[in-house]
Amino acid sequence: MIKLSLAYEGTHYHGWQKQASDPTIQDQVEKALKQLTQKAITIYGASRTDAGVHALGQVAHFSSDHRFQAKDWVRGLNALLPKDIAVKHAEGVDATFHARYSAKEKLYRYFIQNSAQRSPFAHRTSWFLPETFDIDRMAEAAKSLSGEHLFTSFCAVGSEIKDHRIHLKEIRVEKRENRIVMHFRAPRFLQYMVRNMVGFLVEVGRGKRQAQEVPEILAAKDRRMAGPTAPPQGLFLIKIVY
Amino acid sequence: MIKLSLAYEGTHYHGWQKQASDPTIQDQVEKALKQLTQKAITIYGASRTDAGVHALGQVAHFSSDHRFQAKDWVRGLNALLPKDIAVKHAEGVDATFHARYSAKEKLYRYFIQNSAQRSPFAHRTSWFLPETFDIDRMAEAAKSLSGEHLFTSFCAVGSEIKDHRIHLKEIRVEKRENRIVMHFRAPRFLQYMVRNMVGFLVEVGRGKRQAQEVPEILAAKDRRMAGPTAPPQGLFLIKIVY
Repeated sequence: MIKLSLAYEGTHYHGWQKQASDPTIQDQVEKALKQLTQKAITIYGASRTDAGVHALGQVAHFSSDHRFQAKDWVRGLNALLPKDIAVKHAEGVDATFHARYSAKEKLYRYFIQNSAQRSPFAHRTSWFLPETFDIDRMAEAAKSLSGEHLFTSFCAVGSEIKDHRIHLKEIRVEKRENRIVMHFRAPRFLQYMVRNMVGFLVEVGRGKRQAQEVPEILAAKDRRMAGPTAPPQGLFLIKIVY
Repeated sequence: MIKLSLAYEGTHYHGWQKQASDPTIQDQVEKALKQLTQKAITIYGASRTDAGVHALGQVAHFSSDHRFQAKDWVRGLNALLPKDIAVKHAEGVDATFHARYSAKEKLYRYFIQNSAQRSPFAHRTSWFLPETFDIDRMAEAAKSLSGEHLFTSFCAVGSEIKDHRIHLKEIRVEKRENRIVMHFRAPRFLQYMVRNMVGFLVEVGRGKRQAQEVPEILAAKDRRMAGPTAPPQGLFLIKIVY
């Protein structure tokens, strides 16, 4: 079994997961694997990143009887993959390893470009918001969201996952010069959960919502209570912990 | 007369200067000016950046009898320009001001991503070269190029500019973690001159060329003596000094 660590800019893909029609990251990696090995290989990702979402540390596994060394997988795949997808690391792992089911924690970060003027170099990798935010209030609301809760109000309507109890181990808002960076860490996340929390925290930072509303929003188990979904281009899958 | 300072990612444009067919940065700015003022306005840029070259501080001027305040030009144009072009600053200037002819110095930087593996986030804004470079030798060759010389060997063949005597006031090679950054400063540059110097310096860093060859290369006044042209995506117009 081979475990890969991948980075990608998701701008031009309809997310990680294979789809009937639209091009995905999984398609590109499987295509490169086929070119390299002359065999059809299915790859399993740790996280189904959505359309337009990026990764610095996606993890995926596949089985192959090819006797390539780890560095040959890295070099071979990087030579074949498009410029917006790169393999960072490869290693042989036990047959029991599963990128998704063996994962202990996932780390995400969301980037807001918070400057008076937009940058032509940041539009693919951040959400541009020029207004002034109350970072302390955002941090207070983030604290109210941390811990174990039923996150139904922050889960996409129609999601297939029925267990909405998530232990949000870290949620942190940080101001870095012209950027606001939000950090998220949990064993798993629900569909759109990070972007829905970002959307809510931005409303808090604007003074339109309050940290004090969090218990009520969570108790309502109603998506309509938690506000808008942040756009995908600011979201990065940072790391999968095993 | 209005003076604008602009930033852009040049990836999707055929350079600054208007052309018969292909889309350019100038086209986009003039289009936005026309939408904003309902009049056809011609804009004059300080530097004709080539296709795929970026800018953090391009300067351009135009005349208009609109009584917009500086901040209205910035806000209005940024609302109309595509995401990869932004106006950073606007100000009213004397009628004698000319973005190109009033310029005293131009600053360029060239970025090489010098890491074992390519990054999916750097491919539009740097030249990816994974090998190990001898930075000291590159710095030595850069020093030999500094000062006033006839730069014919580093000028594109067929360039319209006939005076090839350039006072290269600064040329500096710097290693920053996974990047090599080259700094260039002169009152003006010849066509492809920066990219041709970068191409030569990279050959020096690889040990294929020597700093000691510089006097001979310059004396030859022959483009074929100076080696390959670096690709456009690593080049940034940083600043125009008036």
